[in-house]
Amino acid sequence: MLHTHIEQTEEFIGRHIGPNEAEQAHMLKVVGADSLDALVEQIVPANILLKDGLDLEAPASEADILAELREIAENNQVFRSYIGQGYYGTYTPNVILRNILENPAWYTAYTPYQPEISQGRLEALLNYQTMITDLTGLDVANASLLDEGTAAAEAMTLARRSSKSKSNVFFVSKHVHPQTWEVVRTRAEPLGYDVVLGDEADGLPECFGVLLQYPHSLGTVANYEALAAKAHEQGAIVIAAADLLALALYKAPGEWGADIAIGSAQRFGVPFGFGGPHAGYMACKDALKRTMPGRLVGVSVDAQGKKALRLALQTREQHIRREKATSNICTAQVLLAVMASMYAVYHGAKGIRKIAERVYSSTFLLRQALVKLGVKVLNDTYFDTLQIESEKAPEILETALSYGVNLRNVSPTSVAIALDETVTLFDVQDLVDIVAEAIGQETIDINDLADAAEDIQVPADLARQSEILTHPVFSSVSSETDMLRYLRALADKDLALDRTMIPLGSCTMKLNATAEMIPVTWPQFANIHPFAPDDQATGYEILFERLSEALCEITGYDAFSLQPNSGAQGEYAGLLAIRAYHKANGQEQRNICLIPASAHGTNPASAALAGMEVKVVASDANGNVDVEDLKAKLAEIGDRLSVFMITYPSTHGVFEERIVEICDLIHAAGGQVYLDGANMNALVGLAKPGVFGSDVSHLNLHKTFCIPHGGGGPGMGPIGVRSHLAPYLPGIVDEQGRIDDEDAVGPVSAAPFGSASILPIPYVYIALMGAEGLRKATQMALLNANYIATRLAPYYPILYSGRNGRVAHECILDLRPLKETSGVTVDDVAKRLIDFGFHAPTMSFPVAGTLMVEPTESEGLAELDRFIDAMIAIRKEIEQVEKGEVDANDNVLKNAPHTAESLLSDEWSHPYSRKEAAYPGGMDPLKKYWSPVARVDNAYGDRNLVCTCPPIEAYES
Amino acid sequence: MLHTHIEQTEEFIGRHIGPNEAEQAHMLKVVGADSLDALVEQIVPANILLKDGLDLEAPASEADILAELREIAENNQVFRSYIGQGYYGTYTPNVILRNILENPAWYTAYTPYQPEISQGRLEALLNYQTMITDLTGLDVANASLLDEGTAAAEAMTLARRSSKSKSNVFFVSKHVHPQTWEVVRTRAEPLGYDVVLGDEADGLPECFGVLLQYPHSLGTVANYEALAAKAHEQGAIVIAAADLLALALYKAPGEWGADIAIGSAQRFGVPFGFGGPHAGYMACKDALKRTMPGRLVGVSVDAQGKKALRLALQTREQHIRREKATSNICTAQVLLAVMASMYAVYHGAKGIRKIAERVYSSTFLLRQALVKLGVKVLNDTYFDTLQIESEKAPEILETALSYGVNLRNVSPTSVAIALDETVTLFDVQDLVDIVAEAIGQETIDINDLADAAEDIQVPADLARQSEILTHPVFSSVSSETDMLRYLRALADKDLALDRTMIPLGSCTMKLNATAEMIPVTWPQFANIHPFAPDDQATGYEILFERLSEALCEITGYDAFSLQPNSGAQGEYAGLLAIRAYHKANGQEQRNICLIPASAHGTNPASAALAGMEVKVVASDANGNVDVEDLKAKLAEIGDRLSVFMITYPSTHGVFEERIVEICDLIHAAGGQVYLDGANMNALVGLAKPGVFGSDVSHLNLHKTFCIPHGGGGPGMGPIGVRSHLAPYLPGIVDEQGRIDDEDAVGPVSAAPFGSASILPIPYVYIALMGAEGLRKATQMALLNANYIATRLAPYYPILYSGRNGRVAHECILDLRPLKETSGVTVDDVAKRLIDFGFHAPTMSFPVAGTLMVEPTESEGLAELDRFIDAMIAIRKEIEQVEKGEVDANDNVLKNAPHTAESLLSDEWSHPYSRKEAAYPGGMDPLKKYWSPVARVDNAYGDRNLVCTCPPIEAYES
Repeated sequence: MLHTHIEQTEEFIGRHIGPNEAEQAHMLKVVGADSLDALVEQIVPANILLKDGLDLEAPASEADILAELREIAENNQVFRSYIGQGYYGTYTPNVILRNILENPAWYTAYTPYQPEISQGRLEALLNYQTMITDLTGLDVANASLLDEGTAAAEAMTLARRSSKSKSNVFFVSKHVHPQTWEVVRTRAEPLGYDVVLGDEADGLPECFGVLLQYPHSLGTVANYEALAAKAHEQGAIVIAAADLLALALYKAPGEWGADIAIGSAQRFGVPFGFGGPHAGYMACKDALKRTMPGRLVGVSVDAQGKKALRLALQTREQHIRREKATSNICTAQVLLAVMASMYAVYHGAKGIRKIAERVYSSTFLLRQALVKLGVKVLNDTYFDTLQIESEKAPEILETALSYGVNLRNVSPTSVAIALDETVTLFDVQDLVDIVAEAIGQETIDINDLADAAEDIQVPADLARQSEILTHPVFSSVSSETDMLRYLRALADKDLALDRTMIPLGSCTMKLNATAEMIPVTWPQFANIHPFAPDDQATGYEILFERLSEALCEITGYDAFSLQPNSGAQGEYAGLLAIRAYHKANGQEQRNICLIPASAHGTNPASAALAGMEVKVVASDANGNVDVEDLKAKLAEIGDRLSVFMITYPSTHGVFEERIVEICDLIHAAGGQVYLDGANMNALVGLAKPGVFGSDVSHLNLHKTFCIPHGGGGPGMGPIGVRSHLAPYLPGIVDEQGRIDDEDAVGPVSAAPFGSASILPIPYVYIALMGAEGLRKATQMALLNANYIATRLAPYYPILYSGRNGRVAHECILDLRPLKETSGVTVDDVAKRLIDFGFHAPTMSFPVAGTLMVEPTESEGLAELDRFIDAMIAIRKEIEQVEKGEVDANDNVLKNAPHTAESLLSDEWSHPYSRKEAAYPGGMDPLKKYWSPVARVDNAYGDRNLVCTCPPIEAYES
Repeated sequence: MLHTHIEQTEEFIGRHIGPNEAEQAHMLKVVGADSLDALVEQIVPANILLKDGLDLEAPASEADILAELREIAENNQVFRSYIGQGYYGTYTPNVILRNILENPAWYTAYTPYQPEISQGRLEALLNYQTMITDLTGLDVANASLLDEGTAAAEAMTLARRSSKSKSNVFFVSKHVHPQTWEVVRTRAEPLGYDVVLGDEADGLPECFGVLLQYPHSLGTVANYEALAAKAHEQGAIVIAAADLLALALYKAPGEWGADIAIGSAQRFGVPFGFGGPHAGYMACKDALKRTMPGRLVGVSVDAQGKKALRLALQTREQHIRREKATSNICTAQVLLAVMASMYAVYHGAKGIRKIAERVYSSTFLLRQALVKLGVKVLNDTYFDTLQIESEKAPEILETALSYGVNLRNVSPTSVAIALDETVTLFDVQDLVDIVAEAIGQETIDINDLADAAEDIQVPADLARQSEILTHPVFSSVSSETDMLRYLRALADKDLALDRTMIPLGSCTMKLNATAEMIPVTWPQFANIHPFAPDDQATGYEILFERLSEALCEITGYDAFSLQPNSGAQGEYAGLLAIRAYHKANGQEQRNICLIPASAHGTNPASAALAGMEVKVVASDANGNVDVEDLKAKLAEIGDRLSVFMITYPSTHGVFEERIVEICDLIHAAGGQVYLDGANMNALVGLAKPGVFGSDVSHLNLHKTFCIPHGGGGPGMGPIGVRSHLAPYLPGIVDEQGRIDDEDAVGPVSAAPFGSASILPIPYVYIALMGAEGLRKATQMALLNANYIATRLAPYYPILYSGRNGRVAHECILDLRPLKETSGVTVDDVAKRLIDFGFHAPTMSFPVAGTLMVEPTESEGLAELDRFIDAMIAIRKEIEQVEKGEVDANDNVLKNAPHTAESLLSDEWSHPYSRKEAAYPGGMDPLKKYWSPVARVDNAYGDRNLVCTCPPIEAYES
């Protein structure tokens, strides 16, 4: 008694879960269930419901788990990194670190699909796009990709669909980063492209695309003007994997003829993080923009005719084009792209140029010293990287280690040294000392070299002539005060979890607890290069091991790969594993992927990218898989069946009763089951996919396991597999591009462990909750959803439900009948919710004309009721339209959201009052969120596509 | 060339200073100066202007100084602390840590003198007051004091003015914390009180007040009911220094008869910080409230009749009552009080009680084990502290150290152990093991003790019967989501430096850079007990030494005391030093303090508390010291002159030309010069008070040296002195209350080094700026002020200026003529500025009817112009009133600030438009800050004093 009294381990469970005990009791009463367990039994099919609890450690206290994480972190050793290879040391400006990366207003925001409440991060992303187009000298850039490697792979497919060449060859320069080559190779294989690695200096083969690294991975800066012209002559698309900082001094790819530029914005203020997350980028010529992958922020106007931003050209995207999609990119790296863009705003054009010059000058100085030492430096041109050829290469590496320094191990006779903005004269001297010591020479004092170096200039034929970062936003900030206020002003425009629930269906917007976030920015996690020697990353190894173990226990799988850095990457990696498995079993003909009609659009897109043919299985009237149709399809395709992809509970928010039977059918037909983990938040602690019939799943750690959405990324999509698929998980590539395991399929991300630095988040979450807490969280997710469904059913039909009329962790409100009777659309309701201060639920997915609501377990009763009451109030507003009491076009719904400015006009001609517009449902005026813009006109922006910051005059008008 | 190119040390200077180079050039042109140096020569008297730069390290980069601080921090050793004695281990809830202590929206806010833009922190402070009154069982609590020691001293003076007893004796129980006794003793001496330390068990002497510790410093919980009754019989006031957490289980002081309760809220989630900052508290019976010291938040109404909070009973305070003030308290500990109140909101009534029970249970268990070990535990009653008597006391202490544990060293034969909320069963076992090992016994497994301890109860006669924390706010939060949103909602109500300049005169609201703030929350600074053994605080020692050295160099003084934890404490300590100096020289009769008429009100208040008689020196027409009057006064008082207190540059914002002459006059008359450092931001790098004639100054580190205001505290007021005063700096008290130096006057703060944990802030600031940056900052502070003065002079007369018509770092706008012509008051202008999104300048200080503006060097040209343009627009609005074009009472000025709600009413009867009210001066609607309340009615609230959260119904109505 006394002892349990003193113990203090379970408090976090109540912190994570919104409703307290009394509220839970009330809600159970409302939904008509005797207990949480009883409710669960009503919902979850008996044949999958777990009898026993998960076998996990007891829930830890916040203090204990942070202490444990500190111990784990201490196992990582932060060496000074000069490895380069796409990852460079950088200073995150402290004001950005604390006010973006550590600020819930930024990190808990959702993807800006609701543009009116996302103008702040949309502006930050537009700055990012402007920065990328400016530095690369191209016309259009997207709002970030996952990393440089996948960006290169995406560029390859973009080249394929843009090139007029008939060739099936994609040429990759041998000077690209090794990991990029591996990702491209992996991606090309299922698509049937013939990827050729070679030296462009030896001439180009006939090809549809050319991937060049600029500067080379090992330092040389080549003049690619002639090569680009030659490639264009044969109709090939030229892709430059370009270093953004180098572009401050070197001619932009767009200026020497590249059609596409890709790369990473990591060195713009985003820590190594053992490989991620970082923002990848892609820019292209105007002609390619409408098939460019990824999200694109564009400028449009709102209903008042004012400038407003939103995601443009959505029709290109995978969630609409499904198996016809040319990319499965779904997540971006918004938080990191925002940081990188703010790094450019913070330093400004002048500052970025100065940093680039500093890096170049340091490299110049180091090269001078090395040459004077008699060392053979292979490259004559360079920005930040020097390649040394020496019999003593191993000694140089060893000596460096003894100084706490990592160099790049190129080969037994070569090392490379890549400098960055953090390098001081002291560091340069250190490097000189290291090399001198290793080759047994007396060192040189770099101060003695100074005079010789008065006039350092980038070679004229390579030098950039154009100005950089010319938009005024890149000279708007000089002081930290300016920066701080800009960040606050943008954050204030947006609605994130720190102000309101975000009741999306299909994206689990639960609490991102502070304790989970704290370790992410610890130097021992943040400052490790992804290719640092293994023995320096022991802390990460421990973390990966423990996290994988816990995820195996939770899912019932036997092995995990933590590499995929988004859900879609996870799908893709999972399908590749299945493909490789069939192949290994001599069943190469198995290439059909069956997908239910209700599937999320990335499923078919991923299948297409994995070289599979997609066939759709029908749904029955209740929204479930039509098992008869499934049987018919199986009979029809026979041994061509590769995989059945299913989301469970379904995207309709229902636990299909026949899931086990379905899995059995697939296995009997020789296929594999891919269970999409998007809805894992309804399963954790209640059922294990790996046990009830699935062979592989990705988990959206950014949904179920508390990685914050970051305004649209980072995501993390590790995959779990049963043991027979384990050999086919993505390979781990080392710094020389060697893969760890022959059977493994190639890597799907540039970094060996994807976005490693955010993995403490799910680990801390699981440790804080324990088996008991995780199960409780899932139960509460079900209760919260059923509470909403129960209370809203009298007002809006719940489109689908399962046994006992229950929904799973989300519910679909059918607004189609209301459109018939009133003309009010889901859009109108979603925008009216903004007037109430809410982020809208998911609109028109998976069924057009509906709203899907997932409250998650983290929302408390008061917030649930606030939402429900708002929806009821809106229903009454619709009723007035139905009854003809208010104008069908000029009403609070059609004109939502209302901006303060529009409500304060002298003239007021609307048939409703200003207060009805501003404070609907009698809401507390002190809790008012003001939408900064009125309803955004999407079509206008797509017709008049502008994807960079408008010139300053546009703001004035 | 190359090398300087690679160096990167000076960037921060430009980050701290608002205007960039181009803007500086423009501004110099506007004010008509050729260069910054030329401007300075026009302003600063030649005979004080420094010829040479300061002798400081070159400016460091942010990365370098943080690395240096990490090294310093590593010199501190974080031991497990069981010392107690007023400071206890606690968990700062992570959500509070990150979203208050590390969030600029909270820490950069100013004192809530402008209530309309401070409703968020006022609500948090009202929660604090409610929590204190509830736990102490008293009627009214203030919004925090500096620490427990000074709160006890303040309670003594409150007792003196409230007691009907004729006695001059103040009785202090020997059971109070030793440091409290020392602070009380120091404070009593100049006031002539007879302080008696004794054991109340032996009976009370005749006295006006009684200070008791509850529970005792060494653990016992006494039943003071009878004692309190006896004290009351003789007219004495009973003061309980009470532990807030113990009050969750033990009868509240108000319930057993205490008239006043004081103490610390540290253990409510505020880290040790080597002694501070923490929030002290004071609560009292209703009868005493109007003379209670400190700030008091009260409930009032706004112009729309809605509930609104503001500081109440301002007329009591030192800045109004001057030498008649009974306290010089000026700063509070707002940020820490907010944290402590949020700790209570986070845990709620249930959670706080549970924590208290856990502490009590742990203590119970430990006691059982110790007794079983045969150890003599002296106290039978206890909450968290046990005192052991043992010949082996030194061995116990030593053994504890070997376990990384600190115990309290009471005497050679006694140690005490104080537990806290962080204690686990593991820790209790550790303690048992330590004692067993030290006394040579085999240890006991505490698990074997469990059964005996089924029913643990606080003794019935001591137990609290009443509920705790009954206000609904203390059961409003259960999840972290709730907490996060509450914090965000409150922060959003307020204007702080992250959204706007705060152009106060007399409070320097400059950038609080992130890099300066980061080390504060590092565990090596945050988690050290103030009485930890010296060798565990070597890091702090290094920090203090380096900081003191730098401050000496900057000010020209020879020695510094870092103890005073507010500016007023600094004044007081400085005056005590002067007093002791005169006394040591046999000049005890020197007890007159001369103060210019323009002085800040704390100057005379501090002098009065230091036992001095205050005489006022007149100002001349230009606002300067009337030197002739000074001479006359000197002649008149002769050898009774103790000190002349002067603020320089003057509170009128002018560098008086005759400062050196004035200092000489004082010294010639045998007096000392106290130069108030409030305006040090105009001197750093340009002139040194210690060189040009002053003997002692306090520095407001929270003004000039970047400690953020925290919404009204913490402050830090270290004093610098010339060598002859150095022996009389405040003494450093050890854990047994022994003072380090016989000559030293007693301590002025409870903790040896005041608010030690925030001292990294000024240290980092100085290191980042270096001599060059500090000088530049001062120059820019002068330029910014003169730019404002130059541009606004055509619209508002600048009341005072010095040589060449220049102001110093601030300027006074004279609005009195406008009141004559238009009826518009400074209040109206200040409130109208809120509509523009500004925090108002200082109102009516030092001259009624004026606004004093200090822009600081951190504001950029755009923000300065925004302010100037707003003031010009307001001037035009006033002109319309003057001309009779608008109604004299119903206009945008008189009705300011306008809330959104009031502007959206259906009826609009004002003679101006909604837009004119909302978006004055054509401001960008997207930059609108909405005041949550209309103008607050101060008088109403003072007449109807409510200083706790209103019952929930009040919110509903």
